[in-house]
Amino acid sequence: MTDVSGLSIAILGGTGDQGKGLARRFALAGHRVLIGSRSARRAQDAADSIGAGAAGGENAAVATEADVVIVAVPYEGHRALLESLRAELAGKIVIDCVNPLGFDKQGAYALPVAEGSAAQQAAEVLPDSTVVAAFHHVSAVLLMDPAVHKVDLDVLVLGDDREAVGIVQALAEVIPGVRGVYGGRLRNAHQIEAFTANLISINRRYKAHAGLRITDI
Amino acid sequence: MTDVSGLSIAILGGTGDQGKGLARRFALAGHRVLIGSRSARRAQDAADSIGAGAAGGENAAVATEADVVIVAVPYEGHRALLESLRAELAGKIVIDCVNPLGFDKQGAYALPVAEGSAAQQAAEVLPDSTVVAAFHHVSAVLLMDPAVHKVDLDVLVLGDDREAVGIVQALAEVIPGVRGVYGGRLRNAHQIEAFTANLISINRRYKAHAGLRITDI
Repeated sequence: MTDVSGLSIAILGGTGDQGKGLARRFALAGHRVLIGSRSARRAQDAADSIGAGAAGGENAAVATEADVVIVAVPYEGHRALLESLRAELAGKIVIDCVNPLGFDKQGAYALPVAEGSAAQQAAEVLPDSTVVAAFHHVSAVLLMDPAVHKVDLDVLVLGDDREAVGIVQALAEVIPGVRGVYGGRLRNAHQIEAFTANLISINRRYKAHAGLRITDI
Repeated sequence: MTDVSGLSIAILGGTGDQGKGLARRFALAGHRVLIGSRSARRAQDAADSIGAGAAGGENAAVATEADVVIVAVPYEGHRALLESLRAELAGKIVIDCVNPLGFDKQGAYALPVAEGSAAQQAAEVLPDSTVVAAFHHVSAVLLMDPAVHKVDLDVLVLGDDREAVGIVQALAEVIPGVRGVYGGRLRNAHQIEAFTANLISINRRYKAHAGLRITDI
């Protein structure tokens, strides 16, 4: 497994539930974690609420500083944010975990994305970055729960650059209980993002925080 | 769990790997299984190769006779076959397990489907049937292998009719090792079908017959 112990991690949209949960787990694992937000103040508040040495700052500042950048913003602001950070993200691994979902009274459903998926949109907007898709199915509730020592989940990691995929698999595995599993090329990211809608349906029906495990590997 | 022990099952496209594997497991579980094909002779040959009392016949004949009908044809012939069997399938539960996939040198990828998914296409073509989506991720190799006594897999069952979904969940569970798990409404079937492309990528990378399990339920 690739050694990722020295990598610093910025989380754009790190004040949201998913971003904050990931920030907490990476900080607990000893990584330098930088929470990004439009407001440095809100980022700092989120970092303080997590503890474990996490820091906060404006999105552009944390994107510049970190080795690896996770994109955890709402889909609505996804393209615009990445377009504004093209220079800061150049040459870096950008991990997209955005799920383009809509909600109505029947629950969640996948939104159409012109580029195919949020991850492919990121790759189009950021030609000088290496985009990897991962962390779509993590439960923010479980990541934030101090009583949950092991998260029972495989994180599917998708990308076209094998070295970057390996790094992200290794990053997933710093969260206790998690396996980082190669899940295919970026062109097959849409269904991984959209599967989050099914997990939401499963959570409602079974009163659970469902995740997935891949069998036979 | 719903009692499905008396249900007879027709499998359209039952001479293909996926259909034959399902036919074998249902026949072993004591169900009357009718393999359908365009050619009654090929259907009978497939039934004989399975043993366990499976019978064969033309698609229209087995669709008429069975209580529940599984659609396991290649996506190319999906719409035309269902249009030709609208009357025979009226009033029945139709289980669609078709994965609309394309293949190139980079592996498998999801084909666009105008109706959203093969399952939604079936529902549009068959307004008088109750369409349920399930059995997309079963490995034909494992289903056919006499050494595999338990299949390590959750079958996701999607549909808008709760009673029909319950019946299909129960049918999934006649295969030893399998759980039938509610996976959402039919409008969220696309990503379940498309996820088969990711499983194919995983199988290639890890030399496996991968399936999935849902955690925390």
